[in-house]
Amino acid sequence: MATLCRPAVSVPEHVITMEETLALARTHHDGHPQLPLALRLIENTGVRTRHIVQPIEETLKHPGFEDRNALYQAEAKARVPAVVRRALEDAELRAQDIDVIIYVSCTGFMMPSLTAWLINEMNFSSDTRQIPIAQLGCAAGGAAVNRAHDFCTAYPEANALIVACEFCSLCYQPTDLGVGSLLSNGLFGDGVAAAVVRGSGGTGITLERNGSYLIPKTEDWIAYDIRATGFHFLLDKRVPTTMEPLAPALQQLAGLHGWNASELDFYIIHAGGPRILDDLSKFLQVPPDAFRFSRATLTEYGNIASAVVLDALRRLFDEGGAHPTARGLLAGFGPGITAEMSLGRWSRPTDRPELVEAAV
Amino acid sequence: MATLCRPAVSVPEHVITMEETLALARTHHDGHPQLPLALRLIENTGVRTRHIVQPIEETLKHPGFEDRNALYQAEAKARVPAVVRRALEDAELRAQDIDVIIYVSCTGFMMPSLTAWLINEMNFSSDTRQIPIAQLGCAAGGAAVNRAHDFCTAYPEANALIVACEFCSLCYQPTDLGVGSLLSNGLFGDGVAAAVVRGSGGTGITLERNGSYLIPKTEDWIAYDIRATGFHFLLDKRVPTTMEPLAPALQQLAGLHGWNASELDFYIIHAGGPRILDDLSKFLQVPPDAFRFSRATLTEYGNIASAVVLDALRRLFDEGGAHPTARGLLAGFGPGITAEMSLGRWSRPTDRPELVEAAV
Repeated sequence: MATLCRPAVSVPEHVITMEETLALARTHHDGHPQLPLALRLIENTGVRTRHIVQPIEETLKHPGFEDRNALYQAEAKARVPAVVRRALEDAELRAQDIDVIIYVSCTGFMMPSLTAWLINEMNFSSDTRQIPIAQLGCAAGGAAVNRAHDFCTAYPEANALIVACEFCSLCYQPTDLGVGSLLSNGLFGDGVAAAVVRGSGGTGITLERNGSYLIPKTEDWIAYDIRATGFHFLLDKRVPTTMEPLAPALQQLAGLHGWNASELDFYIIHAGGPRILDDLSKFLQVPPDAFRFSRATLTEYGNIASAVVLDALRRLFDEGGAHPTARGLLAGFGPGITAEMSLGRWSRPTDRPELVEAAV
Repeated sequence: MATLCRPAVSVPEHVITMEETLALARTHHDGHPQLPLALRLIENTGVRTRHIVQPIEETLKHPGFEDRNALYQAEAKARVPAVVRRALEDAELRAQDIDVIIYVSCTGFMMPSLTAWLINEMNFSSDTRQIPIAQLGCAAGGAAVNRAHDFCTAYPEANALIVACEFCSLCYQPTDLGVGSLLSNGLFGDGVAAAVVRGSGGTGITLERNGSYLIPKTEDWIAYDIRATGFHFLLDKRVPTTMEPLAPALQQLAGLHGWNASELDFYIIHAGGPRILDDLSKFLQVPPDAFRFSRATLTEYGNIASAVVLDALRRLFDEGGAHPTARGLLAGFGPGITAEMSLGRWSRPTDRPELVEAAV
């Protein structure tokens, strides 16, 4: 059984508070007819602090797509290895035990992917499989968990390393003045997360079933406009309404597994924004507190894209985990609009009699 | 057993011959100190014709990264569905039978990936998994086959659709004047390919084992420089020497399977360039004719990146396939430098007694 072990998470050292964000919006967009709406939306996010790779003065400059991407690459190389090392330690594995690296990141582009550099730099085996995914956006954290689960289902002795590296601040576009962009400027943060899915052994969520769901005809609701200045984030105002069609998809997946998505023991949900969490809580009929890990991530780090679900999961571990065989749901949401959903149980090796017997 | 069915392939209607390519190089780079070398390298590719999405006059203009990407998107939407439809027909499946779409393409960037549009447009199920890969370059065709194989190993009743969409002509950079760039301008072509991997049933290569190999410390030998003008292809002059370290990796994978990579019945090899094929033939000690499918692709279409292996495989089908249980190797090579390798046997449902029995 594939087990998703404790994620390691790191956020950069430069912090921007909501007060600073609101002050910047007021200064930079003075006279913008929709400034009051944008300020209200930013306040409603509940994002208290965000962590970014550069001081805010540098973040607000746009040195060009080339320099931005060079910075992405340098920051990824500077920040990812330590997080990967911790994820391996937490899973009690070495780099040489890893069979596949799933690297998800939508805020910079490299060819080859960082996976090649990581394999060389951190002494992973030369036959490590590489699955770099850049085009699933915030859903990619959930997708990475699901593809790792699939890989360990195909090869039960295999181990998968997931890395989510998101520097959303490097996608700041000063000339984008729509309300969606102004809101995004106050919502997204930077973060790096990594976690191991062990084919056997390990403490964490034993993955039992996964699924994807694409809401029909919404492919332009979350999108990148690709320009000479880089990735321009387009956010349709209908995005916050998507929990209404996604809640039944989550219920359906749970139903296939004989579970009720409204009555699970823990929830690791992509914290795209506050309304996502409020609405999903309403449509799934679960108490708001069930999403406390996601809310804490959103409040302290902002929306860190594909890394959100791994950080929310880290907070479950920090709380001491769940009771043996507790049932839970992990879900990432992103462009498509795509949901990547996973069902599993909390487990430690000592909870699994067959492992105890094998160890005797 | 997962079976890789007949690929469907389509190349665009605009054709450029080697003679035209050489004439253009002479005109555009008149006085370039390394022009004679570039012309010799282009002649040595053996690429007789290439097919491109626009007339050559348009191809030689650079309208900016934004327009290029918009064109990529429009051309992908115009050309991919018909190829997918044929791949489904050849596999005797409907869109609703597909569980995962693996979309590989390194010559344009979209967020969300084309997978979301395809699912909506071609009536795939809303729960189809999406695996878009942009960062494995030419190796991605092999990677797609391998990830499809893994998926069907995890879920033996599942079916995977592979799509490789490459418009290399949209990455032409008129200001890149290194010899590697001049050579690339005469080597790469455009093409779209699709194939289904069926979890059960189907005629084609029954996939038995796959593996990846990264040549240590070569991650900057094939790379993109990401600039405001788009993707700039960097090709190190040492790339053609890579078959020496890769041949043992192919041998090792075959050895793990109890096979000898020098004595297989068919070979589907990435036709990166003529030296790749010549050297691999030498290091694996197989007769040059064994790589005839790859050579035909290179001669008629040029290097169509991740679509090469699917087009080479299509040519094996066109030749009538192989004898029952014939053993073969499929390998894609690309940035990393990464090899994605697969071993399988030619099979038809009637060759598999358990299927015949089940049908009785």
